[in-house]
Amino acid sequence: MISKSVAQFVRSLHQKKYRQQEGCFLVEGAKSVQEVLSSTFEVDLLLTTDAFYKENADGADRQRCRIETATAEELTRVGTLESNNAALAVVRMRANVPLLRAPDAWVLVLDDIRDPGNLGTILRIADWYGIDTILCSETTADVYNPKVISASKGSFTRVNWWYGDLTGVLNQANAPVYGAFLDGDDVHQSPFNAAGGYIVMGNEANGIGPNITPFVTQRITIPRYGDAESLNVGIATAVILDNLRRVQG
Amino acid sequence: MISKSVAQFVRSLHQKKYRQQEGCFLVEGAKSVQEVLSSTFEVDLLLTTDAFYKENADGADRQRCRIETATAEELTRVGTLESNNAALAVVRMRANVPLLRAPDAWVLVLDDIRDPGNLGTILRIADWYGIDTILCSETTADVYNPKVISASKGSFTRVNWWYGDLTGVLNQANAPVYGAFLDGDDVHQSPFNAAGGYIVMGNEANGIGPNITPFVTQRITIPRYGDAESLNVGIATAVILDNLRRVQG
Repeated sequence: MISKSVAQFVRSLHQKKYRQQEGCFLVEGAKSVQEVLSSTFEVDLLLTTDAFYKENADGADRQRCRIETATAEELTRVGTLESNNAALAVVRMRANVPLLRAPDAWVLVLDDIRDPGNLGTILRIADWYGIDTILCSETTADVYNPKVISASKGSFTRVNWWYGDLTGVLNQANAPVYGAFLDGDDVHQSPFNAAGGYIVMGNEANGIGPNITPFVTQRITIPRYGDAESLNVGIATAVILDNLRRVQG
Repeated sequence: MISKSVAQFVRSLHQKKYRQQEGCFLVEGAKSVQEVLSSTFEVDLLLTTDAFYKENADGADRQRCRIETATAEELTRVGTLESNNAALAVVRMRANVPLLRAPDAWVLVLDDIRDPGNLGTILRIADWYGIDTILCSETTADVYNPKVISASKGSFTRVNWWYGDLTGVLNQANAPVYGAFLDGDDVHQSPFNAAGGYIVMGNEANGIGPNITPFVTQRITIPRYGDAESLNVGIATAVILDNLRRVQG
């Protein structure tokens, strides 16, 4: 049975304002909570059904966090998922520290990605393609939004992000900066630098913004074989990274 | 000003039962309505703001449909979008006729794709990669669901679909049937048949079902370079089709 004050606290974390105030965010559902329990994130509070706790006692105990049992109905009521019959964790945010590009590595740069579902999908894709550094403009969706966490399917535990002024970073980039435009080099023709670089993905409606465009040193394009006007930004990210890894491994 | 009976009729089409009963579905928002007006779909009713009508009078008049002006507030109230400041069309469904594979063509086969957003994204991807024939299991999301139509970004006007028993079709397939599994041939290594075939995409949680698996003649895999457990089915569709077109054009 979840107390009124815990329920209120958890519900407040649906909103960015309170997440920032408390320094905490929500992780919901069996798979995501399992992943966060065994990650380097610090769990403050675990609300769990008896069944989920039994199966995940090791991970839960390792976190040494406060644990309260709850019913599926209660978890669903205080959380954001349509249904949750497993667990909900309140997890400490990480400090927003600048991230450096490792030698030969690829860094993903997100310029104003607004949709939380797209951002979560992009984390999952980055994780699939072995890219662990993501730089986000201040206008990009909040990575701690429950929809982002949920759409990332646990990948938020394996990639690192930083939010800040992209122009400052790109201004000091000592590597090529790739950006997807309609008139760039064909990604099928291996346009990628062997020593890594930055790949910029732009806003859902407007693409890469005018303040970022001057930093793009190489325009790339996903060739089109039919009539759709564009691809979703998550889809485009996956296709670009797939072509990159196909050639470079 | 939309009459009460029109509002009620439009709202009823949010539900599959009434769409099937009436043989109509909804198309909402500027871009989608523009595309459907100039497509071969038959528009029955157009609810439009004055501004949208002025800009699209040609398309609207060509359809010779009933046209009523409405405010953005009214369009939003009777429709399914979070906001709609342009137009809403009531469009006639197409008959569900079997589709044949053209010589050398590729056909996309959807086995139990449940999420409307995923189905809409897949229509858009198919359209981008020039694949216009999609066969859907009866359990796949309803293509006329407003979320599918909206997510397809107009691509529903350019691809053809059929819903029915996939086993019957695949049993008579005179071409290779490709299916994505974890243990298949690397899509980067050009495993695709030069004379076309079928590409099966499976359910979001369970992949290709046990009734369809026996018909798969070639298992394919998207190589993984990181730690995510899987890719979203829309993402996987895009990556597979991108690799197919890269080699075959």
